[in-house]
Amino acid sequence: MQSMDDLFYALLQDVYFAEKELLKTLPELAKKSANKTLRQAFADHRDETEEHVERLEKVFEAIGQKPPGKTCDAMLSIIAEGQRVIDEVEDDAVRDAGILAAAQAAEHYEIARYGTLRAWAELLGQDETVELLSETLEEEKHADELLSWIGEGGVNASASERPQAAE
Amino acid sequence: MQSMDDLFYALLQDVYFAEKELLKTLPELAKKSANKTLRQAFADHRDETEEHVERLEKVFEAIGQKPPGKTCDAMLSIIAEGQRVIDEVEDDAVRDAGILAAAQAAEHYEIARYGTLRAWAELLGQDETVELLSETLEEEKHADELLSWIGEGGVNASASERPQAAE
Repeated sequence: MQSMDDLFYALLQDVYFAEKELLKTLPELAKKSANKTLRQAFADHRDETEEHVERLEKVFEAIGQKPPGKTCDAMLSIIAEGQRVIDEVEDDAVRDAGILAAAQAAEHYEIARYGTLRAWAELLGQDETVELLSETLEEEKHADELLSWIGEGGVNASASERPQAAE
Repeated sequence: MQSMDDLFYALLQDVYFAEKELLKTLPELAKKSANKTLRQAFADHRDETEEHVERLEKVFEAIGQKPPGKTCDAMLSIIAEGQRVIDEVEDDAVRDAGILAAAQAAEHYEIARYGTLRAWAELLGQDETVELLSETLEEEKHADELLSWIGEGGVNASASERPQAAE
């Protein structure tokens, strides 16, 4: 790992692994959420995450690299926290709060990493890649806002106050 | 882990461990950063982190619990990433970029966790705790903005454009 290209490629692998793990986990989070709005948010974000994986594959293609099997321990520990809550907590509302907290830690991990990747892609003059990463970054920020809104009792608020995805 | 109090206490332990690890790591990040502004940002944030630890100790006191030895694997893996960059990368600018990226992942981890803790403290009606957690949350957000600014070449921009800490 010596150049900005090396750093970029290493972080891209990290995020690719993180997204693929989330893709496997989101249906479980949806299934185990008692709150209907939270369940729907996870189901919707699963579909978005599928697109995020595809965008990352386009980025790998753009830099002439293959997406390989690097792991991301930070995301694995965040997912393990969510799994522990699902396994241990009996009360629906408390379990939802714990699931939501782990999901927001996952979103913030991704927000940090996509922010860095976008900054590096700009530095490396990869215009197409900057656009792909920006789209995903905005969706991750929106997913985090939506979870905050649900956590603050948004499920009981009027639908018009629901955070809207960026166009 | 069955009640909101249990969740709150578990996450508080996680963040306490994360802050203590950061407190140990920030001087190393400062020492290994070639960029003077980045070095100063890490030194300043080390002092803030010391206060964050003290605030968390006040929160433990407020809920009548002791800060114990739970580990936080997510923060440990983020710190390990920074350490790997420091050990491997020879070029100053590339190493700084890698250190900065790991530091922003750490900040976002904390932003997510303090955001959740504050929401839960509100839910649990712990007014004093809400205030302590809010102060730290704002400082973590500011630290992240400052790192973004430095990453975007802020070191060359005028000092008046530097992100200011919230009052």
